[in-house]
Amino acid sequence: MQAPDDVSAGSKRCDAARNRARLLEAARHLVDDLGAEQMTMEAVAKEAGVGKGTLFRRFGDRDGLLRALLDEAEAEFHEAYASGPPPLGPGAPAADRLTAFGSTLISRMASDDDLGASLARQLRRRSRNASETGRAFHRHVSTLLREAGVDADHDMLAHAMLAFTTFETADHLRRECDVPTERLQATWAQLVRLVTRPD
Amino acid sequence: MQAPDDVSAGSKRCDAARNRARLLEAARHLVDDLGAEQMTMEAVAKEAGVGKGTLFRRFGDRDGLLRALLDEAEAEFHEAYASGPPPLGPGAPAADRLTAFGSTLISRMASDDDLGASLARQLRRRSRNASETGRAFHRHVSTLLREAGVDADHDMLAHAMLAFTTFETADHLRRECDVPTERLQATWAQLVRLVTRPD
Repeated sequence: MQAPDDVSAGSKRCDAARNRARLLEAARHLVDDLGAEQMTMEAVAKEAGVGKGTLFRRFGDRDGLLRALLDEAEAEFHEAYASGPPPLGPGAPAADRLTAFGSTLISRMASDDDLGASLARQLRRRSRNASETGRAFHRHVSTLLREAGVDADHDMLAHAMLAFTTFETADHLRRECDVPTERLQATWAQLVRLVTRPD
Repeated sequence: MQAPDDVSAGSKRCDAARNRARLLEAARHLVDDLGAEQMTMEAVAKEAGVGKGTLFRRFGDRDGLLRALLDEAEAEFHEAYASGPPPLGPGAPAADRLTAFGSTLISRMASDDDLGASLARQLRRRSRNASETGRAFHRHVSTLLREAGVDADHDMLAHAMLAFTTFETADHLRRECDVPTERLQATWAQLVRLVTRPD
């Protein structure tokens, strides 16, 4: 049986989640309208009708808020590769899932109207490894490498492979060297094939 | 037979090369003493006994000067992998040369008293792809992948593999996640083995 104190704590947690969602909604609205560079903590607080202190307490700083927004924008992609239909989701061989994952990741990065991609591009100075999204990508790829039976340090090999899909590499090649998205996707597929083929 | 004009042009080119070397020497001296962040164009001009205008004409801007300094610091490593003893230099199988190249690159990046590494770290916001050094690394790796008979888009696969050795990935893993340099080198070696083994 739940004590009255716990009910109250639970209800407070619900309030907190609602408030958090409302703050993120306000931030997303401003980013859509103005771009991430122009989003200030002051404008978000005003839009959400809260004090600036609330915003700083919840997200640390502006970067923390942008990262939270990015993690939220990535949730849909996470759903697709974690539990959606194959080959991205479960049910296909690990190598096919790896190929589908990288290919989707690269095409999302190349998309200009994907909030996750546009935020990630604007935040690219911060390492992807520092975000929950980046850690989830890494867990996913290293798990599939293990499933595919690759004889290697799966944890590190996943870092090595994902390095290709970062803005410093894939986005640089696409934007500065005019490499088409399809060639980047084909390279990922070749890398997966080379790494996962049996000895 | 060389016309007098050409002699004069040749001599001017020699002067230019000497002046360039003197400016780089002054810059290197300041970077050694103060760190790249503290190196100003004004201090370098003063150290070299030239006007600031000369420095800007020669290197474009402060970043251009730092990049030139980095390219120079990398020349010794370039010599080693292009024409030094095997397995880094010619004479060993392509896969062994690839392994040696990445392993040396990773250990140089991890070194705190390597000017090339320390400059590259300080300049890491600029993409390595934008420097002559980065382009030479890429040419070297793609050539060895071709020599090793890897069935892939060598140009792109070289970008994919080198992405692991960037500061955003290898240096981040070493510094933020306490991954030992040896594990990063072993991962590079595994990647080379997986990619170059015959079908």
